Amino acid sequence: MNGAILAVGNELVQGRVFNTNSFLAARELLLHGYEVREILTVPDDLSLIEARLRDFLSRYLFCLVSGGLGPTTDDITNEAVARALGKPLVTNEEMVRRIKERERAQNLPHNPLRLRMAELPEGARLLTNTRAMAGYYLEFEGKLLFCLPGVPQEFEYLLKKKVLPLLEEKLPAGVVVISRLYKIFGLREADINLKLKDLEKMPEVTIGYYPVLPEIHVSVLVKASSKERAEEVFSQIDETIQAAFGPYIFGLEEDLLEAVIGRLLVERKETLAVAESCTGGLIASRITRVPGSSAYFERGVVTYSNEAKKELLGVPEEILATYGAVSEPVALAMAEGVRRLSRTDYGLSVTGIAGPTGGTPEKPVGTVWIGFSCKEATVARCFRFPGDRHLVQDYAAGTALDWLRRYLHYGTLVPGYQFAC
Amino acid sequence: MNGAILAVGNELVQGRVFNTNSFLAARELLLHGYEVREILTVPDDLSLIEARLRDFLSRYLFCLVSGGLGPTTDDITNEAVARALGKPLVTNEEMVRRIKERERAQNLPHNPLRLRMAELPEGARLLTNTRAMAGYYLEFEGKLLFCLPGVPQEFEYLLKKKVLPLLEEKLPAGVVVISRLYKIFGLREADINLKLKDLEKMPEVTIGYYPVLPEIHVSVLVKASSKERAEEVFSQIDETIQAAFGPYIFGLEEDLLEAVIGRLLVERKETLAVAESCTGGLIASRITRVPGSSAYFERGVVTYSNEAKKELLGVPEEILATYGAVSEPVALAMAEGVRRLSRTDYGLSVTGIAGPTGGTPEKPVGTVWIGFSCKEATVARCFRFPGDRHLVQDYAAGTALDWLRRYLHYGTLVPGYQFAC
Repeated sequence: MNGAILAVGNELVQGRVFNTNSFLAARELLLHGYEVREILTVPDDLSLIEARLRDFLSRYLFCLVSGGLGPTTDDITNEAVARALGKPLVTNEEMVRRIKERERAQNLPHNPLRLRMAELPEGARLLTNTRAMAGYYLEFEGKLLFCLPGVPQEFEYLLKKKVLPLLEEKLPAGVVVISRLYKIFGLREADINLKLKDLEKMPEVTIGYYPVLPEIHVSVLVKASSKERAEEVFSQIDETIQAAFGPYIFGLEEDLLEAVIGRLLVERKETLAVAESCTGGLIASRITRVPGSSAYFERGVVTYSNEAKKELLGVPEEILATYGAVSEPVALAMAEGVRRLSRTDYGLSVTGIAGPTGGTPEKPVGTVWIGFSCKEATVARCFRFPGDRHLVQDYAAGTALDWLRRYLHYGTLVPGYQFAC
Repeated sequence: MNGAILAVGNELVQGRVFNTNSFLAARELLLHGYEVREILTVPDDLSLIEARLRDFLSRYLFCLVSGGLGPTTDDITNEAVARALGKPLVTNEEMVRRIKERERAQNLPHNPLRLRMAELPEGARLLTNTRAMAGYYLEFEGKLLFCLPGVPQEFEYLLKKKVLPLLEEKLPAGVVVISRLYKIFGLREADINLKLKDLEKMPEVTIGYYPVLPEIHVSVLVKASSKERAEEVFSQIDETIQAAFGPYIFGLEEDLLEAVIGRLLVERKETLAVAESCTGGLIASRITRVPGSSAYFERGVVTYSNEAKKELLGVPEEILATYGAVSEPVALAMAEGVRRLSRTDYGLSVTGIAGPTGGTPEKPVGTVWIGFSCKEATVARCFRFPGDRHLVQDYAAGTALDWLRRYLHYGTLVPGYQFAC
């Protein structure tokens, strides 16, 4: 089942607004077994939109249009669709009613321009039955044409709630799709790739590798003609991936590392405090983005100066003087100190050189000591992370968080990681 | 001067990889006075690419193609271009030499597939003269066709260093463009819009509004036939914007609020410490993303629990018990406490209810007290920010940072802000 996506808007061809709608639609259509053959963006130009629509409707079974449905004079999608289909514009009374109702409900002065949104190509059927939201579809010579508003929230809502169900009802894809996104921490993309190379050869399988550094996300898509075959292939792949990367997989789909840790801490009724130097609050910030984190996060300290390390964490002056702030004894003292002073179950610490300055031949930029303290022990390891300041900070924060996850989930006191010294 | 952009790649039409190249090209072409009429994405399909290329070359003066130039068999752009132009593929000896040279330099085994990258449409001229990087252009009936690799770093390099200069040499846009991005904090988009409405009517001017909440970014583009006219129009607009929003403009173009503050603190040789509750380290993290922040950032504390507020900041038990953690006395005590204990020039504090839970009728979700402490005084103000947990955190962190900027730049002890209670 082939289709095309057409996005309308001057702001899109001018590179002023990112065309996220088309990306989202392409992804969702793929996951539902539909093939998108072309994604086109054009300005608010009546004859160009008309010509491209006519072409797409002659080639493909469905077409998804976004943008140009609003009340202002540069909104011309309705007229372009009518011309492309050779149909007149007709007043949609239901839409008129909803527009007037909203004007009343929101106490807006009546604006006749708004009624332009109700002038739709003959045969158009509104996509929503409750909201005064633009968006309709048309059946035309066995093909489906969807027109959606460009506002991303409305586009996404209609795509998922209306367009995909209608497509599946009227133009069933005839294939079964199973997809899963695996989120991996602590392995290199190339090493992951190597272990999955043979799976990629299966005709039903598409594997994608997305470095969202410091994480690697692996997407698996299985497309088969029957549910049985799709499930059979998928379970084979899932087993291979779990066996190859088990403890390195911190989550699936929308999971965030910090939310996974949060769930584990809540389950265990345990608490956490963090002491950060070169990550500068990034770990605390990630943890506290998660709703409900106050149940397990007690405090964080960003001890950028040596004074702060002494005053807030009780790091002894002597070890700072003898070993320097970026050292094993300081990482140990920070992790142990923050856990003891905050009376939590776990303490994490990070001290390092994020750059761009501050490196030395013995401790180049990217050198980071991470400390982990729990009832059982306090340990620290040295890492040398690649990249610029932000990437070093991201690697350090991710490694500290994942270390805690590995302990909570597997009881591993010192997990093996890439970039360990 | 009209053109089109064609991006080739299965991963793009499948929504697996974001098409950032086309977005970047559209934006850069606009800023150089060129108009992009169509941005099309297609899969690795020879006849489709050929058909679309032929169409674009018949309609437009230039066409920019990205992707499909690599060594593997699914890289078919060279062949599609040759077919669309009706020209043969010819071995480019210079490219052969570079490929072999790189194999030697990197000690790679010779792989004959790599030589596919040297089979180019007759008339193709390489874009680089040093690197073994794909990328060429062709002149065809007075039109320009550019073929660039899909790798974003290479695409961006060739676009900026080669494509735009070649376009300006061979197809001068004939217009002068001046652009500026203004970054505003503390005003609503609609209020900004209202004051600029008249400017938008000028034919040479395009104004775009981009809420990057909590900031509003305003882009101004002036396009005129002469440098004098462009400068005249631009200076009129710049004056209007400066007069209307002066102190609310925290920066231009790539400026970040936290970096602007950093520059001001370095100039004044002053220092900062922060005490965060509901922002959870976000302020500290933003400050320490900036290289060189250790010169002025002394420490941060994330006092999520009441114990941490007492132990790390000396907030008295009585005021926590009497007024609650989200209150004026606590915000004052936190700001004053962190400044005193860290012996810095400035202290910032945030305590509030980011949600989704924890709100009460008197202090609903979004209620945030922000404190500011300097030599002159310690003050605090209440805000009620809209949105979900992340947006409340972002508004709170942005407002605290901007408050410091307003003091450093203008000496304003308590600036007026939207969402103040």
